[in-house]
Amino acid sequence: MSRFFSEKYAYLDPYTPGEQPRDRRYIKLNTNESPFPVSRMALREAAEAAERLHLYSDPECTELVKTAAEVFGIENNEILFSNGSDEILNFAFMAFCDDKHPAVFPNITYGFYPVFAEINNLPYVEIPLREDLTIDILDYFDTGKMVVLANPNAPTGIALSRSEIEQIVQSNPDNVVAIDEAYVDFGAESCLPLIHKYDNLLVVQTFSKSRSMAGARLGFAVGNAELIRDLRNIKYSTNPYNINSMTMAAGIGALKDREYFEKNCAAIAKTREYATAQLRALGFTVPDSCANFVFARHPDIGGEELYLKLKERGILIRHLSRPEISEYNRITIGKREDMDKLVCTIREILEEKR
Amino acid sequence: MSRFFSEKYAYLDPYTPGEQPRDRRYIKLNTNESPFPVSRMALREAAEAAERLHLYSDPECTELVKTAAEVFGIENNEILFSNGSDEILNFAFMAFCDDKHPAVFPNITYGFYPVFAEINNLPYVEIPLREDLTIDILDYFDTGKMVVLANPNAPTGIALSRSEIEQIVQSNPDNVVAIDEAYVDFGAESCLPLIHKYDNLLVVQTFSKSRSMAGARLGFAVGNAELIRDLRNIKYSTNPYNINSMTMAAGIGALKDREYFEKNCAAIAKTREYATAQLRALGFTVPDSCANFVFARHPDIGGEELYLKLKERGILIRHLSRPEISEYNRITIGKREDMDKLVCTIREILEEKR
Repeated sequence: MSRFFSEKYAYLDPYTPGEQPRDRRYIKLNTNESPFPVSRMALREAAEAAERLHLYSDPECTELVKTAAEVFGIENNEILFSNGSDEILNFAFMAFCDDKHPAVFPNITYGFYPVFAEINNLPYVEIPLREDLTIDILDYFDTGKMVVLANPNAPTGIALSRSEIEQIVQSNPDNVVAIDEAYVDFGAESCLPLIHKYDNLLVVQTFSKSRSMAGARLGFAVGNAELIRDLRNIKYSTNPYNINSMTMAAGIGALKDREYFEKNCAAIAKTREYATAQLRALGFTVPDSCANFVFARHPDIGGEELYLKLKERGILIRHLSRPEISEYNRITIGKREDMDKLVCTIREILEEKR
Repeated sequence: MSRFFSEKYAYLDPYTPGEQPRDRRYIKLNTNESPFPVSRMALREAAEAAERLHLYSDPECTELVKTAAEVFGIENNEILFSNGSDEILNFAFMAFCDDKHPAVFPNITYGFYPVFAEINNLPYVEIPLREDLTIDILDYFDTGKMVVLANPNAPTGIALSRSEIEQIVQSNPDNVVAIDEAYVDFGAESCLPLIHKYDNLLVVQTFSKSRSMAGARLGFAVGNAELIRDLRNIKYSTNPYNINSMTMAAGIGALKDREYFEKNCAAIAKTREYATAQLRALGFTVPDSCANFVFARHPDIGGEELYLKLKERGILIRHLSRPEISEYNRITIGKREDMDKLVCTIREILEEKR
């Protein structure tokens, strides 16, 4: 810390992204990226946009908004795009939390939520998951707080149903309920159909996973036009040109290429079911996942040990050191052959230990 | 404003970007974009990066940092890239201002500085320019505040010398002095050579103007490694993957294509001198500009009237309504033929008024 750094950030504990080592080639099952390349349609649009890179990108994202509104069946003023869904989640914490409206989220969830609260100096409460890693929706009734839920939850992959979330939204009428649907396209129910029914529901999604655009940085929030206007005011007070022209164009292409999107989501869901069965056959406990990852622990090997042994052998998975889940690892669903290699390597590791 | 929007933002007055009308084709001299397309080398690098868009971008920007450090003669830990220079200026306000360290900047300067202060709830002081629109450096001695200066200043185009800024840096040893060099490459002296001498100097630059990448969103800060670490902590607490892979790659290409960069900067400086002479010949007052724009007023026609009449005729310039400068317009330097068209159209407008 420099001697100029404001005291108010003395406590800052920034988010730690998943490792991206460059020392060798790994089978990367650690950051929930898609194993499929971005849509060709998206690439063509991006290449065209690159020719006009000397001009500012459109801060209103006019064409992208129009395309998305059509795809999602909403109005243009009910969606705001951002530089990844992290950015818009930060905006939501800024806009809808304060001393009178703390945030509330599970203790085991996306690790960035407490960081957003802390950087903005906002009070927050973490509610423990049940022992089986599920969320008890009763914990989120009448909270008097902004509720933030990843659905499916990360790193567990476990989803709530739309009607369960609807009950939470109904029981917190004076606070925003933000549903982070980063992984929803792989098998959970989106809450997008509810946004016209509740003025306090904000749905956040990303192009990083199901649309193979992690490197492009594109996320968005959907909700009541007034909520969206609030987020827009934050955007125009920090970084109006937050989305570059190439990403904006790629987003349009990716939305139009619906067939490719659906095919990839289905393939990942199928591989997930396959990998889950294989891991369970090896003795792993694996909760049913609706995401593009599974969360798994084995009675005979510690979470960190397995992570390290796989890394030695060229396979990266994500180990989170938080004590409650330190026996687990989060494993991204890659291509079928990646999962076969993983299962095969784990089998070897387990055999060595016997 | 929704009923959920935090009271602390009730006063928010977001930044207004320059207009980007889509109703017809204009000669765009209103947002200080480069008239030259981005370097072919940058385009090639971006196209290659697009093929790996399904993978996260490198949050450390390793290759881009390495390339930039070589070009600018600094260490890797003395630079941080951001999603446009707006983002990193916001980070600087967050990191280095608080109730004990207000911000100070001229009353006539980049209109985003007060917005950054307000969104972060930071006290700030605006110091009037001299009547001739120049900055009196004595006003910035021993301020006890974070000094923020655009150099050259916008919208005036007037630059301070490096030695004048050095005096300001020296006289504020306990506060950060942030120099926003968005336009420095068109003819002013950069303060980059001073960063090893002063631990309180932060230099901010952008690829938007001199490197023709306004649509790509790439900016950076250079300073003492500790200042950079502070800004990095803010980045990792809000949006670690703030730069997409295509922009990162384009940035590398643009830095390597030094010849193209220098040729374009020289061409714009030459056209600026030409346009300044032409405008003065028409009776305009035009302060000497070191930027890719000029600031001009005419005794016979109001600033807003000229702006509107030019817009009717297909030429966009930027009019700022602030009373002290409402007789002026900011005119971006485009290609020589654009400036000829501008001068010719203004001549017609002035003749009509006689």
